[in-house]
Amino acid sequence: VGRTHAAVLAELADILPKKPDLIEWRVDFFENIGDTAIVINVASRIREAAGGIPIIFTCRLVSEGGERIPLTDDDTLKLYVAACASGCVDLIDYEMSNPAENLVRLRYASRDNDVAMILTYHNYQHTPKAADLYAQFMNAERHGADIAKVAVMPKGPEDVLTLLGATWRASEASQIPVVGLSMDGSGALSRLFGWVYGSAMTYAVGKNRSAPGQVPIEELHSVLNTVDHALEG
Amino acid sequence: VGRTHAAVLAELADILPKKPDLIEWRVDFFENIGDTAIVINVASRIREAAGGIPIIFTCRLVSEGGERIPLTDDDTLKLYVAACASGCVDLIDYEMSNPAENLVRLRYASRDNDVAMILTYHNYQHTPKAADLYAQFMNAERHGADIAKVAVMPKGPEDVLTLLGATWRASEASQIPVVGLSMDGSGALSRLFGWVYGSAMTYAVGKNRSAPGQVPIEELHSVLNTVDHALEG
Repeated sequence: VGRTHAAVLAELADILPKKPDLIEWRVDFFENIGDTAIVINVASRIREAAGGIPIIFTCRLVSEGGERIPLTDDDTLKLYVAACASGCVDLIDYEMSNPAENLVRLRYASRDNDVAMILTYHNYQHTPKAADLYAQFMNAERHGADIAKVAVMPKGPEDVLTLLGATWRASEASQIPVVGLSMDGSGALSRLFGWVYGSAMTYAVGKNRSAPGQVPIEELHSVLNTVDHALEG
Repeated sequence: VGRTHAAVLAELADILPKKPDLIEWRVDFFENIGDTAIVINVASRIREAAGGIPIIFTCRLVSEGGERIPLTDDDTLKLYVAACASGCVDLIDYEMSNPAENLVRLRYASRDNDVAMILTYHNYQHTPKAADLYAQFMNAERHGADIAKVAVMPKGPEDVLTLLGATWRASEASQIPVVGLSMDGSGALSRLFGWVYGSAMTYAVGKNRSAPGQVPIEELHSVLNTVDHALEG
């Protein structure tokens, strides 16, 4: 989530020793996001430093929790296409709320470059009913996503159960990996044990958090180990 | 869960440095359970060693996951009454499936001696519907319990969500603390995160486990800390 080239690389240097399975670059935090050449240059530096660790390229929409950026939706789409073509990223994360035509264009651009597409549904207001969440996972699959992601806001602990239940059912029904996240403090449980409910990925704090409720990666690893042993009985 | 006097005290010595909030003595594991005087003598030694840490006295029925013991149900009731009268225990855990008359008798004996009564519903076969679980919590309260406990067997991760949801609703509706547990490996999540859903107590492994899915107390403390920080935000 660094704002400058130096900040991004400094964060990366802090994060790598913690051995993440994946690294996400939230490019909407980057001050030079308006200059595609600079963005791609940073991406290539990240690629170089990260070695074989897959990199997720994410430009979160301001309407879905991202930073305010000076790009139009079409500029953003072009930036994603450039990232795919650069060979520097392995996955992109794109909002399903974008125009269907953009989803199609990005699907082609990503597939042509062997980049996996995460299609994401966000709801920052509340947690829809389980059936609606399930439908969003299936929607992402129907749009050709390689990974279907749903992140919603809980109003209480019960909403986290709703999200986990829907994630579980989607993971059983879907042909692609699904990721279910409940946001904010009370959603933190979903970040720690969503994997038990079929969620294929979780987000931890490397150096600075990109969303509320994220847990430091060291603590996440420790909880995962404890739960893993406990589940074995 | 020691079988001998020496084993019980050795376990206790191992456990105390781990600073539990409560200690449970599963007396059904004790080989001299048939001799009330010996049982009370051990209880008084536990009391002495444990200092101010509250002690739960539990003689689990064999039909509800306990050890096979040479006592009739009436003998067991008398043992509970003797434990209450001894001044050596702070709480008792008794199955709600016992005859209503026994519940009443033990309610008097415990109240007379300022011992808190946990009334417990077990289901080792499966996880009943959320409404049925909720009814069991309320049942315990109606029978005069100080703490209502429900422990059920999950058949999959979704059943753990059912237990947590029912625990949450019962904790909101009930005038007494509730404890909700999902057993076995896949229920382990409820032992780690049940407190987020209003469960007032969880069971960890001090030295030897008394039920599958229990987590070592050190790991439990570490997970609780992580979740606690994450929930704050």
